[in-house]
Amino acid sequence: MNAPHPAAREREQLYRDMDPLNLTPLWEVLHALVPVHPQSPCVPALWRYEEVRPLLMRAGQAITAEEAVRRVLILENPALRGQSAITQSLYAGLQLIMPGEVAPAHRHTQSALRFIVEGSGAYTAVDGERTTMRPGDFIITPSWTFHDHGSEAEGPVVWLDGLDIPMVRFFDAGFAENGSARSQQVTRVEGSSFARYGHNMAPVRGDAPFGATSPIFSYPYERSREALERLERDAPIDEWEGVKLRYLNPLTGGWPMPTLATFMQKLPAGFSGRAARQTDGAVYSVVEGRAVVHVESPQGAIVRHEVGPRDHFVVPSWHALRFESEAGCVLFSFSDRPVHQALGILKEERLS
Amino acid sequence: MNAPHPAAREREQLYRDMDPLNLTPLWEVLHALVPVHPQSPCVPALWRYEEVRPLLMRAGQAITAEEAVRRVLILENPALRGQSAITQSLYAGLQLIMPGEVAPAHRHTQSALRFIVEGSGAYTAVDGERTTMRPGDFIITPSWTFHDHGSEAEGPVVWLDGLDIPMVRFFDAGFAENGSARSQQVTRVEGSSFARYGHNMAPVRGDAPFGATSPIFSYPYERSREALERLERDAPIDEWEGVKLRYLNPLTGGWPMPTLATFMQKLPAGFSGRAARQTDGAVYSVVEGRAVVHVESPQGAIVRHEVGPRDHFVVPSWHALRFESEAGCVLFSFSDRPVHQALGILKEERLS
Amino acid sequence: MNAPHPAAREREQLYRDMDPLNLTPLWEVLHALVPVHPQSPCVPALWRYEEVRPLLMRAGQAITAEEAVRRVLILENPALRGQSAITQSLYAGLQLIMPGEVAPAHRHTQSALRFIVEGSGAYTAVDGERTTMRPGDFIITPSWTFHDHGSEAEGPVVWLDGLDIPMVRFFDAGFAENGSARSQQVTRVEGSSFARYGHNMAPVRGDAPFGATSPIFSYPYERSREALERLERDAPIDEWEGVKLRYLNPLTGGWPMPTLATFMQKLPAGFSGRAARQTDGAVYSVVEGRAVVHVESPQGAIVRHEVGPRDHFVVPSWHALRFESEAGCVLFSFSDRPVHQALGILKEERLS
Amino acid sequence: MNAPHPAAREREQLYRDMDPLNLTPLWEVLHALVPVHPQSPCVPALWRYEEVRPLLMRAGQAITAEEAVRRVLILENPALRGQSAITQSLYAGLQLIMPGEVAPAHRHTQSALRFIVEGSGAYTAVDGERTTMRPGDFIITPSWTFHDHGSEAEGPVVWLDGLDIPMVRFFDAGFAENGSARSQQVTRVEGSSFARYGHNMAPVRGDAPFGATSPIFSYPYERSREALERLERDAPIDEWEGVKLRYLNPLTGGWPMPTLATFMQKLPAGFSGRAARQTDGAVYSVVEGRAVVHVESPQGAIVRHEVGPRDHFVVPSWHALRFESEAGCVLFSFSDRPVHQALGILKEERLS
Repeated sequence: MNAPHPAAREREQLYRDMDPLNLTPLWEVLHALVPVHPQSPCVPALWRYEEVRPLLMRAGQAITAEEAVRRVLILENPALRGQSAITQSLYAGLQLIMPGEVAPAHRHTQSALRFIVEGSGAYTAVDGERTTMRPGDFIITPSWTFHDHGSEAEGPVVWLDGLDIPMVRFFDAGFAENGSARSQQVTRVEGSSFARYGHNMAPVRGDAPFGATSPIFSYPYERSREALERLERDAPIDEWEGVKLRYLNPLTGGWPMPTLATFMQKLPAGFSGRAARQTDGAVYSVVEGRAVVHVESPQGAIVRHEVGPRDHFVVPSWHALRFESEAGCVLFSFSDRPVHQALGILKEERLS
Repeated sequence: MNAPHPAAREREQLYRDMDPLNLTPLWEVLHALVPVHPQSPCVPALWRYEEVRPLLMRAGQAITAEEAVRRVLILENPALRGQSAITQSLYAGLQLIMPGEVAPAHRHTQSALRFIVEGSGAYTAVDGERTTMRPGDFIITPSWTFHDHGSEAEGPVVWLDGLDIPMVRFFDAGFAENGSARSQQVTRVEGSSFARYGHNMAPVRGDAPFGATSPIFSYPYERSREALERLERDAPIDEWEGVKLRYLNPLTGGWPMPTLATFMQKLPAGFSGRAARQTDGAVYSVVEGRAVVHVESPQGAIVRHEVGPRDHFVVPSWHALRFESEAGCVLFSFSDRPVHQALGILKEERLS
Repeated sequence: MNAPHPAAREREQLYRDMDPLNLTPLWEVLHALVPVHPQSPCVPALWRYEEVRPLLMRAGQAITAEEAVRRVLILENPALRGQSAITQSLYAGLQLIMPGEVAPAHRHTQSALRFIVEGSGAYTAVDGERTTMRPGDFIITPSWTFHDHGSEAEGPVVWLDGLDIPMVRFFDAGFAENGSARSQQVTRVEGSSFARYGHNMAPVRGDAPFGATSPIFSYPYERSREALERLERDAPIDEWEGVKLRYLNPLTGGWPMPTLATFMQKLPAGFSGRAARQTDGAVYSVVEGRAVVHVESPQGAIVRHEVGPRDHFVVPSWHALRFESEAGCVLFSFSDRPVHQALGILKEERLS
Repeated sequence: MNAPHPAAREREQLYRDMDPLNLTPLWEVLHALVPVHPQSPCVPALWRYEEVRPLLMRAGQAITAEEAVRRVLILENPALRGQSAITQSLYAGLQLIMPGEVAPAHRHTQSALRFIVEGSGAYTAVDGERTTMRPGDFIITPSWTFHDHGSEAEGPVVWLDGLDIPMVRFFDAGFAENGSARSQQVTRVEGSSFARYGHNMAPVRGDAPFGATSPIFSYPYERSREALERLERDAPIDEWEGVKLRYLNPLTGGWPMPTLATFMQKLPAGFSGRAARQTDGAVYSVVEGRAVVHVESPQGAIVRHEVGPRDHFVVPSWHALRFESEAGCVLFSFSDRPVHQALGILKEERLS
């Protein structure tokens, strides 16, 4: 066996000498730092509601909402276990609240979305106004607003929580505070925020109450569904995504939240879509119908999911997504697209 | 010793049962996920040029610019060794180019800034235009533009590289490509970008050539210094930061790059500043003079640096920074502030 | 009688000498050019529907919609007769269309709003989509879009036309073109624009179809009224304007048209408001109920109108407006506020 | 001679009956209100400095700056005599100040630009900072800022005043106020505004001091000229306008003033340009060199001017402009383009 080449030895010595000074040679890692295309450590994954629900119900027995503060099962990406993340930048969880329970008031820098999965009659209270939850509703908790949840329902209510927790952690910018009262005082009639901002009108006086976040707390499914069905009938169907709408902040035309994009789409019956990929990772919640989901990694590994109502799945960055649906399917999804746009790093590719 | 409480056993069993489904209970980690205030894993750190330079010069012997592609010593945060990061979201390194060398052309999603530390006469070429480097110049390489470096200087030239590599990695959005030629062809006279956009004027025809990134490749120190000195004489001195200016994109008034904020500040002779903290972490490069830097962590740990020309240091998120300078001091710095603003999570606090 | 002062004679001679060169001395007119406060040449005026309607119906006999192209009685400010203007910058008229008639397709630079005053079942067609008119609906015709009107109603249909004709004339920027066909071909189902953009959602693909103008053609009264009533019940009543909402462009959060602001407001029963004035002039259309309107000029001249359904009135710039309503009143209005904002010349004053 | 047609009589009667109600039939004027293309009432016109200067100097004898408040000869469009307007929306005048004189402090809603035509050493003071005038400098007086002028020059100083007076009058939004003192107190060193904002940098603290108006009071000719010459050497020459730059507001990238666009352009020696027209009308001031200017009205009437240093001319909306220059020529110009853009009515056409 030969002795190492003198140049190699010299480099090794150099590396040893720079190490104590917190220096490291770029040329040894450049290729990994600046990859030819995104190589997300995340993997595609599916959470079947029929499997998750029993565990949620057991959690309902094992701990009270009040003790838990938030009784949530986090959906962790299999490749990121222990990081409370479904992609590197996104958090997702399923929250359960039982009749009569209260999840106490607190506030934090992190923005949250709620997408109602099962049950009606629970409420979330933000800034003194309660919003009743119904399946398919998309509800917002703006950054740094006090919020609590409760339920006057007869049965359990479950919703998907989507938050920007990993981003706020990555940028070291998180603050939190508990409310003084268990649940905040109601100061406004339910629906007054929607009345103010939900009808393509806005008060003449007063600026955006939540800065860059939408002043509408709730986007009811009733209206989203109506829009999707109208467009399915009247408009051309996109070969990649069927009929897909983005939720918007009526005061800006932009995303409802500065960190999270939210979408609702409908795959018509008999849809067999084409594949597309984008740099933003996305979390999907099936609302109605069934579909077959194909996810292909940049390396060519293909995952196939058969999904139905209340199932959830994640599509990592730059993974090609393709839908098929015999019966038709309605899907809600959220992603970190607003940040990709703000950073100027969003890239999309439609494959044929 | 007692047997565990039945409720505790039930929970343990529940956790074991949910684990295979990639589920985890939020209530066990909530506090860590939603901290009361930022608790960056990063630590303050200093790189003395007198210690770093010899290693840089040895690197100049150990490997050619061409072989290394980029001959850079990465400044790694002591708490993030192996991650090629100076804060969780920022990359910094010191790059050396020797007379006659060429760092070959490539391009990538990541945006880069160069701040010239030592030596004159090297150049960076972006989009067919070369820019000569002089100490104190701030030079931009926009995202996805081909760029190469070379030197017609007599001695070594060293600059600080600042990039958004960790962000692009976190959001899984990096693409890269090598140039066809070793160094790109020069298609424009040096300075024509500055002539077009640098004089508070812009061509009537043609949009922003680099999207959200400044069309000015180089912000010469000569002019930044002139501005600082004028303001030091004429304007009130800020008790926290002396005289501090931000570089701007003349086509938007915003930051020169969508991911990085850049600043130049002057501490007058005899300055004894007050402490301030903010959520964006920052990397500093001392241009002229000397200063004493106090950095206090949220937990109250205090670090004190005596810094001089060409020294570099990092101030993590929510660490209180305070300057003192007998002789006066000029500092360049960059941070991830634009992203904190875009995400709506920037917070600043001036302490008295 | 004395001879004129030599200096005066010298000036007179100077004025005579500069006149042929198209020069004139500022100092003789400065005060008028730069007034201490706005002194609009316009005056407040009222058009009672009971007086206007018979003339409209006679016009229905005297000329066909097709011959007239647009069968409109222009509401001319009494101080601007012959200028086809209700304020210096705004045009308003009442348009009549009879059953079976067609107002042929054309397009022009000028933006138009329609506010439906009487009758249901007529339609306006924009960009291949028809919109059925109902009293209280606010309908948009974006700049440079082909549009025609027709009626399948049983009786006459009358609406208020609001246009920026005087502005476009002032800035010399008007273009117009007649359509090839009498009425344009219908290419989209009625309501598909609203389905796309009216539900606080928007298509993921495709930009703003009409640039700065709202993609919603029609803002139905049904929804505006619902919003006003909710806010009347739940929200504090503004002492100056009762409950007042602005229509918005859901893709920007701004005004529906770049030149015209539109509002709908409700004065609660028993409302006795305070006076306010602003630099933008406004045209009002009474939708429901009755009110007493007080308008005071900057010189202190007061006009008092008792108004009811379908009456129209104009409030010139910087005239103080005050409302009283025993029975309650709903009013639609439009003004040139977006231009005042764009030019940085908007000023408002709330008097106590 | 026949009796009029009964239908015609009926219409005449109808018109007579509606007249007292301030109503008028659109169909009789529609064509004029909605023209096929812009038909500006303005005409092209030229003001030769050699003719204007003697009258300015006589004005210097006939009235003091203080008595005149502003000693200005207004350049009136020959088709708009008596309206103090050079186009329907723009005001232009030549102002003279003699050694030792003061034009007293006042402020008004109207925004003003000064372009220095002859003489050095006069100053304008805005917001407590004086700016010394040199030929070719472009200086701003933001809306509603106190300003006064004075001169410590040896000879007369003359500059072009450009204001939005007709716009502010058209929109009935003008306010004005005289200063308490004859000339305002100097509170800042000359050039500190430029030091703050003129070097592609800006203070970290503090917002735009003048809202939508540029924080730079003066754009010195020295730098504009340098930019033009660099581009003439290095950049392709536009066949229509030579080398043309727009001044910008470094805090927005937009126009320096919300109502006025300003430009500086250089026609290379031997330039023979092509014709272009646009909806914004423009006023030109020749800085250096000579040119032949061809202006063609929409109706095809052609005007030809031979222009040299300090001559001024106006090009109305939608008039085709073409330049020729043997010796080369530098021209400053301003127009109402920002308003055309804000209203969405800007149209440009390059003719071949």
